[in-house]
Amino acid sequence: MSYHEFALIDWIRQHVAGHDRLTTGIGDDAAVLRFPDPAECLITTDMLMDGVDFRVGEAAPERIGRKALAVNLSDIAAMAGRPLAAVVAVALPRRGGMELGRGLHSGLQKLADEFGVALAGGDTNSWDGPLVISVTVLGEATVRGAIRRSGAQVGDWIMVTGRLGGSLSGHHFDFTPRIAEALALHDSVALHAMIDISDGLAADLEHILDESCVGAVLDSAAIPISDAALATAVDGRSPLDHALGDGEDFELLFTVSPDDGWKLLASPPFATQITHIGEIVTGRACQLRAPDGSLVPLIASGWRHWFES
Amino acid sequence: MSYHEFALIDWIRQHVAGHDRLTTGIGDDAAVLRFPDPAECLITTDMLMDGVDFRVGEAAPERIGRKALAVNLSDIAAMAGRPLAAVVAVALPRRGGMELGRGLHSGLQKLADEFGVALAGGDTNSWDGPLVISVTVLGEATVRGAIRRSGAQVGDWIMVTGRLGGSLSGHHFDFTPRIAEALALHDSVALHAMIDISDGLAADLEHILDESCVGAVLDSAAIPISDAALATAVDGRSPLDHALGDGEDFELLFTVSPDDGWKLLASPPFATQITHIGEIVTGRACQLRAPDGSLVPLIASGWRHWFES
Repeated sequence: MSYHEFALIDWIRQHVAGHDRLTTGIGDDAAVLRFPDPAECLITTDMLMDGVDFRVGEAAPERIGRKALAVNLSDIAAMAGRPLAAVVAVALPRRGGMELGRGLHSGLQKLADEFGVALAGGDTNSWDGPLVISVTVLGEATVRGAIRRSGAQVGDWIMVTGRLGGSLSGHHFDFTPRIAEALALHDSVALHAMIDISDGLAADLEHILDESCVGAVLDSAAIPISDAALATAVDGRSPLDHALGDGEDFELLFTVSPDDGWKLLASPPFATQITHIGEIVTGRACQLRAPDGSLVPLIASGWRHWFES
Repeated sequence: MSYHEFALIDWIRQHVAGHDRLTTGIGDDAAVLRFPDPAECLITTDMLMDGVDFRVGEAAPERIGRKALAVNLSDIAAMAGRPLAAVVAVALPRRGGMELGRGLHSGLQKLADEFGVALAGGDTNSWDGPLVISVTVLGEATVRGAIRRSGAQVGDWIMVTGRLGGSLSGHHFDFTPRIAEALALHDSVALHAMIDISDGLAADLEHILDESCVGAVLDSAAIPISDAALATAVDGRSPLDHALGDGEDFELLFTVSPDDGWKLLASPPFATQITHIGEIVTGRACQLRAPDGSLVPLIASGWRHWFES
């Protein structure tokens, strides 16, 4: 990190200096953090680009900044961890970059404050290209450890928070990272595997299945469909297709024993909806049970980056 | 971090799994690190962009990847810390992005291996824009603590490693981050203030002076000038101007008591050149002592990002 670059957004200084986890300010090459527990440090990074993850001009800079931090907090939630600090690197377009940078920071700071995250520093750049913002979040696992994707067991219930699909209509900017829900789940039951839904339910379930070497059957009638997915059905795809395939729901997808599943439904540890959507089975197939009881293969249709050779 | 995105560079998997600091692989939303000492965690981030910090097509992808990590290691060196782990976020141009990504990774991995740094994960994206690469490095302070910019004291010697100027002719890609030198200095003497020279000697000295609320006098005849700066003198600027103003030397600029300064000159703790270039003085001015003994103001001419409104 470079002081003179970062000083462009020097109103960060007062916030940085005020956070109790930071023992140094931005006037140094690296931020120094007090780490409460050395056992398990979580680190995650996500880069968002204009034209891919948002469009400058369509979305307010505050919402873009908020999203850049929120997607990282969602990754910490997926591990049932607590977020502690974030660093932010941006490439700002030269034209209007100062104003854009202020808006980004405002959105970042507000969400960081909500979750007790220290904005520990960053790297502010200008260039002739479009806006790029990259956030790295540090967190810690709780005493119960971090939850991986690899722990799903045959017989587990597959469960999900919230309702799915249609995120592009606004949810992908305004979602609340499920930090509190993940910690409450981790506290209430034995989580076997967990992931946040960023690529789409089917695609992210596939990640759990791949890492856990198991299969799954989802109950199509049980998938909780968002109002936005119901509204977008005019595009020819069904609301269920949207709920299964759309990315950026940023809900938690997790597996637990049936006993723990019943317990969660009987005494939900938070107000956010929890739904039992299927079971982990032997084999490696991922199937969808139609209302008539027939099984069809579930194809992961989530977002993937592509290249030309 | 998203598995499917990162899996584009899935040859990282074997390296990630093999590092003893990592307790999880890339098949999770966040990497889990064992942190040896909770006291002082260092974190730094730098973003490099095509056309600003390098030019794709002119520099091999391996050198770009190496530089993206090296500039962050230099920031850890500036704090006299030890680097532990890095995460990497990239926006790859769609055309040729896979090949570029492989080259970047190769350069990153080689330098990471040299410095015992775990490449803990990342976020790989494609887009229609130019290459952007953002690296975040986690480190730890030694038991002697992290060195700040703010500790320079009146009477201190100002010292520098290596020779300065003309970095653009190649050094900015191929420099060795001064991790070993910084640790050896921290072990041998009481470092009062330190910074790595990324913006240029004059500009980075100014950062130390600002943070320490002191002034400085540099001895123009003592500034160690690189062969590259001597060679670039054909542009009308003197080699001394290059040594004072050029950025990206990535050498260490530090202050110590005169006793410690003498000690370092008498028994250098490493082979890299150490030069005594001036003194910390009262006041806030930064001046250059010409060979005739006259004092002239030293203007920080280092690189700054700029914006259009």
